[in-house]
Amino acid sequence: MKIHFDDFIYGSIDGAVTTFAIVAGVMGASLSSTIILILGFANLFADGFSMAASNYQASKARNEFVQMKRKQEEWEIDNLEEQERDEIRDIYREKGFKDELLEDVVRIITSKRKVWIDTMMKEELGLIEDAKNPMHSSVSTFVGFNFVGLIPLIPFMIFMMIGIELNKDAFVYSIAGVCAAFFLVGMIKGKIVKKSMMRSGINTLIIGGIAAIVAYLVGYGLNFLVS
Amino acid sequence: MKIHFDDFIYGSIDGAVTTFAIVAGVMGASLSSTIILILGFANLFADGFSMAASNYQASKARNEFVQMKRKQEEWEIDNLEEQERDEIRDIYREKGFKDELLEDVVRIITSKRKVWIDTMMKEELGLIEDAKNPMHSSVSTFVGFNFVGLIPLIPFMIFMMIGIELNKDAFVYSIAGVCAAFFLVGMIKGKIVKKSMMRSGINTLIIGGIAAIVAYLVGYGLNFLVS
Repeated sequence: MKIHFDDFIYGSIDGAVTTFAIVAGVMGASLSSTIILILGFANLFADGFSMAASNYQASKARNEFVQMKRKQEEWEIDNLEEQERDEIRDIYREKGFKDELLEDVVRIITSKRKVWIDTMMKEELGLIEDAKNPMHSSVSTFVGFNFVGLIPLIPFMIFMMIGIELNKDAFVYSIAGVCAAFFLVGMIKGKIVKKSMMRSGINTLIIGGIAAIVAYLVGYGLNFLVS
Repeated sequence: MKIHFDDFIYGSIDGAVTTFAIVAGVMGASLSSTIILILGFANLFADGFSMAASNYQASKARNEFVQMKRKQEEWEIDNLEEQERDEIRDIYREKGFKDELLEDVVRIITSKRKVWIDTMMKEELGLIEDAKNPMHSSVSTFVGFNFVGLIPLIPFMIFMMIGIELNKDAFVYSIAGVCAAFFLVGMIKGKIVKKSMMRSGINTLIIGGIAAIVAYLVGYGLNFLVS
């Protein structure tokens, strides 16, 4: 099993945001920390699973789509040979080839079945095969989602275990933990896409922060309305 | 503004799952429908926003990455001309070209700057430019998330507005609505990726269903534990 860092990162940002949105919504609505833990965990497992499953399906669908297109090109080369040869000719004419040299290029490209099909895939369809294993992608997403998504819940778990109901204190630790997590994950993301780590960390922190404030305000506002 | 159906679909599946996970978690834990509405809406806005923002960043990062690689290739062509010419030679030797014809091909490809760079991008780096506008992708995700994610909450809203607290009845309608939504969205997804619509509909229904059952059981189990 290979952990894909990009999938891990996207899973972890989403996990932290959704879980913290529940924490912030509950706090905004002045509900109990029992509700935070119940819904936090329900969300971690349910949403983590669904995200991983969607990711699996999407990667698999993309691989299958590329394979299907490849089979289609193979069929066309077998059954509409002249037409496909003309397409190669058009592609290379576009690149600046002409006359005898163009014919030579077409002859060489179409003399190897694999080269012919690869050329059609890349040049005609703009498709490049992706070597990513859908299962690895999906597990990376799930692990990231649950690992980082757990952070906002930890202070509430600890406070509950030692038997004190200090929601506000736990909330402060939860905010600190999730901010640190957003910033760190954003920095790692910056490193992966080779951009400024500091800027990427701050960006992720801002997006996560806005989401959390929205959740808090909606929780607060709705609780005010209905009570 | 152009709605991208693939982003809409992924947003909508995630929206329906997360919102319904809250509904199922609350019902499993026998909490009130006020909590469903408060946390359901907090989640819709917060998570919808964060998902759209992540999607925007990811598309933008990919575009920027491709642009950065393109600039790098341009620099290499300007400063390491011979080396880059050798790379084109290697690429076409691999395709089966040799001797004089190979030299002619290298000469033509490297005579047009754009063709030269495009060839390096596709053949050496395996990168194809994506024409998707990050803002359109992101808005499509947000609209899908909120539009379909609202469905599981509607029965609870209606019951609350007409002033009756019949959680179990509302839950049944919510289940029916979300199942129909999963199935429909899955069918549309099947149509987009050109696979069996029926199979894709059932698949999405199963994944969403498992996620919902997990949320219900976690809600039920944790409520049992802490109370």
